[in-house]
Amino acid sequence: MTTRREQTSQESRELILAAAAELFTEKGYRQTTFADVGERSGISRGSIPWHFGSKEGLLLAVLERSLADLRAGLGEPTARVETALDLLAEGAGALFVLPAGRLFVNLLVEALEPGSPIQGRYVEMHEALREHGRRVLELLPLPPGMSAEGLSVLLVGAVIGVHQQWLLAPDRVDYPEALAALRTLMARAVLP
Amino acid sequence: MTTRREQTSQESRELILAAAAELFTEKGYRQTTFADVGERSGISRGSIPWHFGSKEGLLLAVLERSLADLRAGLGEPTARVETALDLLAEGAGALFVLPAGRLFVNLLVEALEPGSPIQGRYVEMHEALREHGRRVLELLPLPPGMSAEGLSVLLVGAVIGVHQQWLLAPDRVDYPEALAALRTLMARAVLP
Repeated sequence: MTTRREQTSQESRELILAAAAELFTEKGYRQTTFADVGERSGISRGSIPWHFGSKEGLLLAVLERSLADLRAGLGEPTARVETALDLLAEGAGALFVLPAGRLFVNLLVEALEPGSPIQGRYVEMHEALREHGRRVLELLPLPPGMSAEGLSVLLVGAVIGVHQQWLLAPDRVDYPEALAALRTLMARAVLP
Repeated sequence: MTTRREQTSQESRELILAAAAELFTEKGYRQTTFADVGERSGISRGSIPWHFGSKEGLLLAVLERSLADLRAGLGEPTARVETALDLLAEGAGALFVLPAGRLFVNLLVEALEPGSPIQGRYVEMHEALREHGRRVLELLPLPPGMSAEGLSVLLVGAVIGVHQQWLLAPDRVDYPEALAALRTLMARAVLP
């Protein structure tokens, strides 16, 4: 049985995590302080280290949560080509509309820093996306010589790179048109 | 006629720029100090502000130079499909082998920061790449409904995103295979 105290602690943890994810997205990781997280979450700033140890611990927990959300949001692979293409297109489109999409880019900076504690977790997020792509693509009739692995790296890369161009210049980058081009390329490659 | 003094000044400027580009690539922009640039270039650190005003001015000059190198390195568009595909493949491959490729990613962080002074310049670099892609693609027989603009955003994005996955996990990301998949997709879309 969960005691009242445990339940409150779990609730506080959730509130802190949600506030931290928002702030890391809006201000970036470096610019966010425990005081900001305390204010946004309504939880005393002094209790944040009790829950997460350090700011780095908080960042890792936020990434853990994003990874779980990401995994939960990806659909089941199917051998029906049109359905598979829809599935890939939906996954691609999600990055542009979910708040976690921007977080993903903001944290790239931290992940690329030499010796970064979140590098491993960030690579895991990339791998979860690639693995999903591979599982969908393995069921499709790919052109001779094209591996599901290579194509999956390409698809994940395309979505990441279109997203970044759009974040930098939303008025000048028509991302739906770029994703439509990707779908057309894929359809021509795998439809009979 | 260039005086001796002007020549020396121009040489110092070049040495500082080359050293700064290396250091921004290796250590990142924030971690690099005028002292580092002075030591690497062999030019007195005190003269750096004289040439570039501030660290931000130095960063803008490094970006300006990268943009010029980038433009000079892109080949001339052609209507021969195989040649055009080679041209796009070469452009894509260059990001992975040139030292400026890593600089490009390191500076993305700075460019995405709200109010960043380099955001405009970074967008220009993206646009130079997209424009090159568009000029090559406009000469090719694209599938119905696919615009050279949308496809160009996609190709630039694919290269950026594959590059980042590879930087984070070089042992786990087979980038040549991903670029080969891109070439196959393109060939199936535009070859008769």
